[in-house]
Amino acid sequence: MEHRGVFLTFEGGEGSGKSTQLRRLAKTMQRAGRSVRVTREPGGTPAAEALRTALLSGEAKALGPLAEACLFASARADHVSQLIKPALRQGQDVLCDRFIDSTRAYQGGAGVSAEHLHLLEELALGDLKPHLTLLLDIDVEEGMKRADARRQTDEPDRFEADRMPEHEQRRQAFLQMAGNEPDRFAVIDASLPVDAVEAAVTAIVTKRLGIDLPPVGKRSS
Amino acid sequence: MEHRGVFLTFEGGEGSGKSTQLRRLAKTMQRAGRSVRVTREPGGTPAAEALRTALLSGEAKALGPLAEACLFASARADHVSQLIKPALRQGQDVLCDRFIDSTRAYQGGAGVSAEHLHLLEELALGDLKPHLTLLLDIDVEEGMKRADARRQTDEPDRFEADRMPEHEQRRQAFLQMAGNEPDRFAVIDASLPVDAVEAAVTAIVTKRLGIDLPPVGKRSS
Repeated sequence: MEHRGVFLTFEGGEGSGKSTQLRRLAKTMQRAGRSVRVTREPGGTPAAEALRTALLSGEAKALGPLAEACLFASARADHVSQLIKPALRQGQDVLCDRFIDSTRAYQGGAGVSAEHLHLLEELALGDLKPHLTLLLDIDVEEGMKRADARRQTDEPDRFEADRMPEHEQRRQAFLQMAGNEPDRFAVIDASLPVDAVEAAVTAIVTKRLGIDLPPVGKRSS
Repeated sequence: MEHRGVFLTFEGGEGSGKSTQLRRLAKTMQRAGRSVRVTREPGGTPAAEALRTALLSGEAKALGPLAEACLFASARADHVSQLIKPALRQGQDVLCDRFIDSTRAYQGGAGVSAEHLHLLEELALGDLKPHLTLLLDIDVEEGMKRADARRQTDEPDRFEADRMPEHEQRRQAFLQMAGNEPDRFAVIDASLPVDAVEAAVTAIVTKRLGIDLPPVGKRSS
């Protein structure tokens, strides 16, 4: 049997701390001797990063939700075929900041049908699926406060700039997806202190994927 | 049974005379008492015309062939659901300048896989299919000469500006599609004088779709 890495995705709303937790988990996994590839969506490859710019700047918004979803799918197709699948085949673990569930929550929430989303996932993923999806769940107002504080001087991106009811709708959509696919998802309370969230992430990865990770709390970095 | 119009598409390379023949057929069908809706791709609806601009200006080219194909598909999905299907349901005939076969020839020729093209067709069309596709076939050099003459002062668009081997590859792709789906396609020699091409188009529509059309040659316009 081929030696294959595990594919782990982080999902959640704005300010949920996905990127911080992803970096911390990557370090922990590396300390455990694993080869880890960190990536993000939209993006990850040169072609997909070009699409990221068009998508997050808001340029693509005027084209409508289905066109946006199609552009996310084509960026994802490139990312999956050029980076994610080759890395997994080489036995690397891949940790990805946002993936299909963000498209379902954001573009699905904007009116793209489940049928269209399904076809676009088939196009982008083929037979790939995350082994584990960590949903960092946080109250929308609290998350937006964190996102605003983090952002400092930059303008909010095209999705951060949406209104509160849209953020709330996405949170509910994420939770519903987690309910529908309990074997793939783990929901983590992202309102806890960052070290506590990290401990929860580490414990879940250890338990669900059978990966031995050193206990959190002895961080030197 | 629902009264439904027929859905007719025109395909072919640059300078093949598709648009001229489509307009002439529309007039002939109207003289025969039919209600005819003329449209084009990319475009046809406000959202899709916005995408047309991005696609034909070359803006979208940098995103890569799959992203282009995805944008064509999302424009098509809007066009199909907002214009083509409603018109057919109301019993109008729809004549469309370019459709799925152009995407197969152009983006397929640029490297988008048959599997991806198939998924994008499913996304855009659902259960719709043209009743008849008229392929206006012309020698590539002859066609480009005509396109250049027609264009006058304008710059060639993103696809006209491609090189001769690419135009030749598309011509062969169109002919191969016609060979694979002989029931849907009719191939017409577009190098003939415009009135002779019109006569061929009219005869084929009469025969294939059982629509009684007045003989060509008595044109008053």
